[in-house]
Amino acid sequence: MEERTEISDLGEFGLIDYLTRNIEIQNASTVLGVGDDAAVIDHFGKQTVISTDMLVEGIHFDLMYTPLKHLGYKSVVVNLSDIYAMNATPTQITMSVAFSNKVSLEALNEFYEGVYAACEKYGVDLIGGDTSNSQKGFIISVTAIGEITPDQFVRRSTAQKGDLLCVTGDLGAAFLGLTLLEREKKIFLESPGVTPDLEDQTYIIGRQLKPEARKDIIDFLQEQEIIPTAMMDVSDGLSSEILHIAKQSNLGVVLYEEKIPIAQESKEAALKFGIDPTACALSGGEDYELLFTMKQQDYDKIVLNEQISVIGYMADITEGAHIHTKGGNKFKLVAQGWNAFNQEA
Amino acid sequence: MEERTEISDLGEFGLIDYLTRNIEIQNASTVLGVGDDAAVIDHFGKQTVISTDMLVEGIHFDLMYTPLKHLGYKSVVVNLSDIYAMNATPTQITMSVAFSNKVSLEALNEFYEGVYAACEKYGVDLIGGDTSNSQKGFIISVTAIGEITPDQFVRRSTAQKGDLLCVTGDLGAAFLGLTLLEREKKIFLESPGVTPDLEDQTYIIGRQLKPEARKDIIDFLQEQEIIPTAMMDVSDGLSSEILHIAKQSNLGVVLYEEKIPIAQESKEAALKFGIDPTACALSGGEDYELLFTMKQQDYDKIVLNEQISVIGYMADITEGAHIHTKGGNKFKLVAQGWNAFNQEA
Repeated sequence: MEERTEISDLGEFGLIDYLTRNIEIQNASTVLGVGDDAAVIDHFGKQTVISTDMLVEGIHFDLMYTPLKHLGYKSVVVNLSDIYAMNATPTQITMSVAFSNKVSLEALNEFYEGVYAACEKYGVDLIGGDTSNSQKGFIISVTAIGEITPDQFVRRSTAQKGDLLCVTGDLGAAFLGLTLLEREKKIFLESPGVTPDLEDQTYIIGRQLKPEARKDIIDFLQEQEIIPTAMMDVSDGLSSEILHIAKQSNLGVVLYEEKIPIAQESKEAALKFGIDPTACALSGGEDYELLFTMKQQDYDKIVLNEQISVIGYMADITEGAHIHTKGGNKFKLVAQGWNAFNQEA
Repeated sequence: MEERTEISDLGEFGLIDYLTRNIEIQNASTVLGVGDDAAVIDHFGKQTVISTDMLVEGIHFDLMYTPLKHLGYKSVVVNLSDIYAMNATPTQITMSVAFSNKVSLEALNEFYEGVYAACEKYGVDLIGGDTSNSQKGFIISVTAIGEITPDQFVRRSTAQKGDLLCVTGDLGAAFLGLTLLEREKKIFLESPGVTPDLEDQTYIIGRQLKPEARKDIIDFLQEQEIIPTAMMDVSDGLSSEILHIAKQSNLGVVLYEEKIPIAQESKEAALKFGIDPTACALSGGEDYELLFTMKQQDYDKIVLNEQISVIGYMADITEGAHIHTKGGNKFKLVAQGWNAFNQEA
């Protein structure tokens, strides 16, 4: 029988002590971590960048096919992605969780293993949080803190006409992974005897369950001394994000379908599901890639980086926002990004 | 009929725009607020203090008797209390909420009115957050950020033997307010026709529904140039907090029952309910007063402040932790503080 320890046996303070017992501070800026009314950080003449996200069971994740360790990892990573999208370096997080009495200490431990794995990989310190009961479901709230040289942060609203529009990695895979997992869940619920065959789908499933934040790209841009003119992360689908940058920068935009990076595994999965791969990239969400604009003269510095694709350019606002399709058509770009409020729970 | 606007009509971004439309930045340290991947703060050579709390419907609050505006206010205040308890000044908060489809825009608006009222009163900027659906119930996660002159923050673990043990305001009223509200709820559920008479109970109800953080005390201590040797806020009941300071400072403690400040209204309410007022103060929780220790030579500076009571002193660890009762007895001090994990939901 699997081990099961009731969380109520520890009490809240015992639980916090238990969950934070192995923390080792990684950042000099972390003056005081977990264990007091608040944590203290000292950014030594840098600016502090803050971002926060809430993840709710049944809305943002399904514990039927999400391993808790991956969930812990992803909860951290999606917040770090926001910090990188400011061109900043994440340094600390706080993590609050609420969970029902159904959750055992072993389960919570698995979740925190993922949290600590992400903290270690990205060099951030867990400096605080809260644990509490919920009436139903697992709820996660993460706040990420980062640092940046004063006024080097990159907003969404500062793209310039003529700037190149770039995106990192590839798009649509996380959505296809989710589609596959949802399909297999449905099959399993209808015929519990059938074992799902996910063997050759590890890429798209991995992109859904264990995304990474593009620290490597921020490092690369710094090495190349490129400061993007605008940047954000791709969490809600490419088209929605492009329209955010265009609208907030008061510009038009031209996007080329053929330039949108899509992995071979994603194309094959899309084909199987009978979905257009481009639609997955435009509207799928949860890719956690970086979308940024930069001056044309920086093009030579990025051209050899296979992780960066130039997918279009920023135009005058009078030109609107359009996508040029592979078939030679020109369509108005519309946001069909993931919207938590329209989602079926 | 009451107006009701569905939140799904706005979409997530529309909702965030709507809820944050009136924000005016109050702190020079707020370089960039709501609307990008992250906010940016610049503390100009100060240290940054961070605290976070999660509040869950049915666990931490009951919407049957909690007005949403008060809930918004309290959600902010309980976090600011943690920042003050570090001897720091709160400057920014992030606010994440998850709510079911039952919640209308008007209801959410009321909640945010309370949030903004607290922000204005305490001079903090709302710089970010997240809004999302929940499967059930209203969930609130707040992170508060504050600033302090480097290394002037006050921990729980630094009390010294012989220090005076002090507490602000009065204790137990919030618990008595909760007891009253729960009793009236029960009566109402059993006999819906009976209108509750809460008229002469405004003090204890107010302490429960709309607590304040002790900014005034932090200001006073700074004016008097007193730096407490240890400090925390009283959220879980006095005895639990005293034991935190004693344990973390590796000290014993002597507490005098007769010195524990309890309001006349609380004494009367306790009498009505047949509860010992001292038990309410020791174990009640949610008072959000400040508990601190200070050097004996600072006594003259606080003696005239009616908002500060000296309730005991820190002793050698070999003396243990004891309370001297009014009746002349000496009992071991035990933590019976509020514990979210043992609470009946």
